[in-house]
Amino acid sequence: MRIHVGTFVICVLCLLLFNALALNLLSPGSYDCTTQCSDTQNQLKESINRLKQEILTLKQKCSTNESTSSLHDSHSPSLVPHIPVIHMITPTYSCWTQKADLTRLSQTLMHIKNLHWIVVEDSDNKTGLVARFLKKCNLKYTHLNVRTKKELQRNSKEPVWRKSRGVEQRNLGLNWLRRNHMTMPGKGKGDVVYFGDDDNTYDIELFDEIRATRKLSVWPVGICGGLRWEGPVCDDKGTVVDWHRSWAKLRPFPIDFAGFAIKLDVVLQFSTAEINPDSRIGWLESDFLSQMVQPSDAEGRASNCKKVLVWHTRTEKPKTKDEERLIAQGQPSDPLIET
Amino acid sequence: MRIHVGTFVICVLCLLLFNALALNLLSPGSYDCTTQCSDTQNQLKESINRLKQEILTLKQKCSTNESTSSLHDSHSPSLVPHIPVIHMITPTYSCWTQKADLTRLSQTLMHIKNLHWIVVEDSDNKTGLVARFLKKCNLKYTHLNVRTKKELQRNSKEPVWRKSRGVEQRNLGLNWLRRNHMTMPGKGKGDVVYFGDDDNTYDIELFDEIRATRKLSVWPVGICGGLRWEGPVCDDKGTVVDWHRSWAKLRPFPIDFAGFAIKLDVVLQFSTAEINPDSRIGWLESDFLSQMVQPSDAEGRASNCKKVLVWHTRTEKPKTKDEERLIAQGQPSDPLIET
Repeated sequence: MRIHVGTFVICVLCLLLFNALALNLLSPGSYDCTTQCSDTQNQLKESINRLKQEILTLKQKCSTNESTSSLHDSHSPSLVPHIPVIHMITPTYSCWTQKADLTRLSQTLMHIKNLHWIVVEDSDNKTGLVARFLKKCNLKYTHLNVRTKKELQRNSKEPVWRKSRGVEQRNLGLNWLRRNHMTMPGKGKGDVVYFGDDDNTYDIELFDEIRATRKLSVWPVGICGGLRWEGPVCDDKGTVVDWHRSWAKLRPFPIDFAGFAIKLDVVLQFSTAEINPDSRIGWLESDFLSQMVQPSDAEGRASNCKKVLVWHTRTEKPKTKDEERLIAQGQPSDPLIET
Repeated sequence: MRIHVGTFVICVLCLLLFNALALNLLSPGSYDCTTQCSDTQNQLKESINRLKQEILTLKQKCSTNESTSSLHDSHSPSLVPHIPVIHMITPTYSCWTQKADLTRLSQTLMHIKNLHWIVVEDSDNKTGLVARFLKKCNLKYTHLNVRTKKELQRNSKEPVWRKSRGVEQRNLGLNWLRRNHMTMPGKGKGDVVYFGDDDNTYDIELFDEIRATRKLSVWPVGICGGLRWEGPVCDDKGTVVDWHRSWAKLRPFPIDFAGFAIKLDVVLQFSTAEINPDSRIGWLESDFLSQMVQPSDAEGRASNCKKVLVWHTRTEKPKTKDEERLIAQGQPSDPLIET
């Protein structure tokens, strides 16, 4: 059978035209779908987040099962009865300055009565370095670990503020307390929770303020939020009347983790309250606290917030290129000497 | 009297010729004077250094006269007799992290018996902040000050290694000890001198090693000299058989100030030994120690130099631009709140 060349050409042209029309009709650009699309995307994102949370909870559960604790260990210092225990949650990760930071902080904590130090490593397994360190540090401690999910890990070139460190570690600490408070002296009644990073600086006076917490205590933090100090402004009775901060001014709690302490009772009452790694930058603390308390619950401490007793110091990241050079030459600093 | 024009011209030409010859004979370029020149320059430089040292000594004398000390103060903790005192010399300067660094260090030192803390401010006058801090810190202390000479001050853009901080402050501490040892318990016999910066990290175990010093003790320092650790390598008897370092390998004492302690007796015996601000970069410690001891005098401590008990940590310089913005707007962080 033969087709006339003219027809053939016309057919081909028609097909092309039809195809073009069909594509045009079916293509997403042919009608406005922005709203629908973003709704769907949001739903998907929410699902992902729910799943992530679930995985996190499971991970935490697994990790908690193998937590190392000296809380009830007869070799570690004993807790004085009838004085609230301060549960201080400290995330930590492997780096050149880790042991130095932990050493320095532990020596401050050695001055504090009834301190229970919950050290949570950002690692797949508990490291020998931290395990040995804690065993020797003469403090009541619990040693936990959870590795930060890959998508939340900050690479070395990203700025510090881009991704928050220690989120999953703090959550693990909270959940450990929720699961273990019944075995604590007095079932943890009256105890207080405080988040304390390993390179911050704490005046030992701060711990008296922490221990006196009734629901939520707040105080200024030195060298924080880009300012000489950031935090609550109080009247003479300790009522918070304003917040001193330079950015993200809409935050209901414009405060760093080092700037508040919360009663363990409250944490137990709101058993699902967690720190959300997907919070907007700078909103971690506000989003977390808003699940449990109101800004009006905040009680100003440290001489009505006129005293700075904690500083958001950071340990400078050391330069490692000389060591790398020696490693390349097969002559690293003796690895048997722990630093 | 008239001169013949011809003669005049000849005379002028002769004079010019003579002048040229004389200049040629006297000019430094006419013979090779490199050696002589550099000798002269060196002599001049030496003189300048001597004068500088003299000025420094005078300055120190003036400052010492008005030193604040709680060494014999009945309100500060008392020294236990028959245990050597550790005189720890700490230079400090005004910056955002100063109070945090001093707070953190003081809380480590509070664990140490018979510790005399010599805090030397880099300032024209003693600051209220440091004076108040020391009064409250519950340690035996002496408060001194000397401002670093202008030519030795590092500007904010110069790299850290370019100019050494704390030289004149450490020298003032040494000279204070030389002048005051006779009024100390046991006249300072058996006491030990240690240089400890305010942002280093010290394991409290280190102070047992310091106190046991016989002449010169040495040990490795963590995160130092570009390496994971820098310092002596010892045999099983604590004899230093090598030094682990990555640069300036010719130094007789390739060690940081944090890596040694010296008996006060030795410092008293060599009464003119001082730290020289004009030492080559990295040679401060070596040039200082070489005035009093030999490398063979060094005794390796801290489990034969197998343990790191001090880290050369640095506190990160905070970003201040938000505060500067608020200051420009006339709304600085409340200056009455001390940080």
